[in-house]
Amino acid sequence: MSEFDDAVALGGRPGGDRTASLTEGWVIGAAVNGGILTALAVTAMRQAVEAAGGHGDALVFSAYFLSAAQPGPALLRPEVLRTGRSMSSASVAVVQADDRGPTEVERLRAMATFGDLDAQAGPVWRSAPPPDLPDPDACLRADRSAADFARAIRLLDRLDLRLDPRTAGWAVGRPSREGRIRAWVRLADGREPDAASLPFFLDALMPVTFDLGALGWAPTIELTGHVRARPAPGWLRVEISTQNVIGGLLEEDAVIWDSTGAVVAQSRQLAGVRMPVAEGGGA
Amino acid sequence: MSEFDDAVALGGRPGGDRTASLTEGWVIGAAVNGGILTALAVTAMRQAVEAAGGHGDALVFSAYFLSAAQPGPALLRPEVLRTGRSMSSASVAVVQADDRGPTEVERLRAMATFGDLDAQAGPVWRSAPPPDLPDPDACLRADRSAADFARAIRLLDRLDLRLDPRTAGWAVGRPSREGRIRAWVRLADGREPDAASLPFFLDALMPVTFDLGALGWAPTIELTGHVRARPAPGWLRVEISTQNVIGGLLEEDAVIWDSTGAVVAQSRQLAGVRMPVAEGGGA
Repeated sequence: MSEFDDAVALGGRPGGDRTASLTEGWVIGAAVNGGILTALAVTAMRQAVEAAGGHGDALVFSAYFLSAAQPGPALLRPEVLRTGRSMSSASVAVVQADDRGPTEVERLRAMATFGDLDAQAGPVWRSAPPPDLPDPDACLRADRSAADFARAIRLLDRLDLRLDPRTAGWAVGRPSREGRIRAWVRLADGREPDAASLPFFLDALMPVTFDLGALGWAPTIELTGHVRARPAPGWLRVEISTQNVIGGLLEEDAVIWDSTGAVVAQSRQLAGVRMPVAEGGGA
Repeated sequence: MSEFDDAVALGGRPGGDRTASLTEGWVIGAAVNGGILTALAVTAMRQAVEAAGGHGDALVFSAYFLSAAQPGPALLRPEVLRTGRSMSSASVAVVQADDRGPTEVERLRAMATFGDLDAQAGPVWRSAPPPDLPDPDACLRADRSAADFARAIRLLDRLDLRLDPRTAGWAVGRPSREGRIRAWVRLADGREPDAASLPFFLDALMPVTFDLGALGWAPTIELTGHVRARPAPGWLRVEISTQNVIGGLLEEDAVIWDSTGAVVAQSRQLAGVRMPVAEGGGA
């Protein structure tokens, strides 16, 4: 079993509450990575929808982050909202025991609509072209030994992440300030990408605000992703960008292309950021 | 009371289930407009959060459309998920009686996170510039008498919508095929825009696929919106666009600027579309 499949494995039976174990290996800073938590939530919803007779590909999902998930046991409570001829919808609550008391605390509430990606694999009428990246071997390997900022990011051990040098200047104190980071990415253990792992990859990179000179954390408030096609095996290309950084909030958009150059997923998240005062900024 | 405030008025008390009346005036095609339904859902969540002591500005909201809402009574069941120091979250189910039986049917499930927009009104570090539109009087007035496609759109009576002629060629059989529509918009009865009405404006235009030569309906599967600032009084500028039309699905992005040129809201929706075969399209 791959590290990813192990991370989204669920105890209990589809149709009822599910259990999961969040491990140290997917931690980033002070919390379990939002992407892996979202992939886990989508898995629980997918299995509930399939148990109710619905289709099993998440076409769209939204994750609302309510508190920082910690390594340890988690409980997932899926609810099937509707099963239809071509689409079905579900929600799920992800809760953990509260360190500070006898009660539980909700980490994440998510919703998703499922369908059949094969039925959507029609003509590509219009599509964002993939970014022109240097070969993976000509890109910068992002690993925990490479830079100070990366030491606390255990998640990087799970990924083979190669940053486009043109958008990685922030790692050496020279952010491009274009609000854009591009990279090749795949799972470090060689597991190939599929529709179920795309929700994870949409939130697997560093915050795009690194490229604006803000090297602090940018906690996700909400993330909505669309899965547009099944990815072919091989490297994924990811581009994250932002256009609006206002007060303490920004949107981060992500697009993923597979090894054939096809758009396979995209997302937008609302995140918090503390911009360094030296960056200026005007009304 | 304005037409908009009337449409989002709720019976019952905050903290419990709420009632609403969906009227013919907001119908578009065979369903009540998704934007007004979303604004109603956000209103119910906001009042529940405020009753629980939380902040009252929706910063982000997601609406999953489960079935087509019809004019008539509706019931809203809000649930407060979390109240925090700076942000609070809620969900809501919007249900109607089922025409085909004694049971109820869910129209919409939504979630939102609320905060204080004034606390986010800090420096604009980075922002999409407003599109350069001709003056409203030099734009095309979209009303129900103007074109065949518009007759069934009762919603247009609620809006003063002025389309940029450069992105309105579809109305006379000459779509630009750029995947972009721009317009000035305000409420027809003169009610000024505010943070509570922005969720409605994000889904008030015709589908962006009109500009790709697909004049059929494009039902919203899911819509997530971000409210980034309180709008100043006056005209709003809206731009909708799409980059990826794959098989029978597309994303539609919307950005709204207020009369001062500030970005005040943005959204992305996943919608269904049937592209005309004559449009071609390749793999």
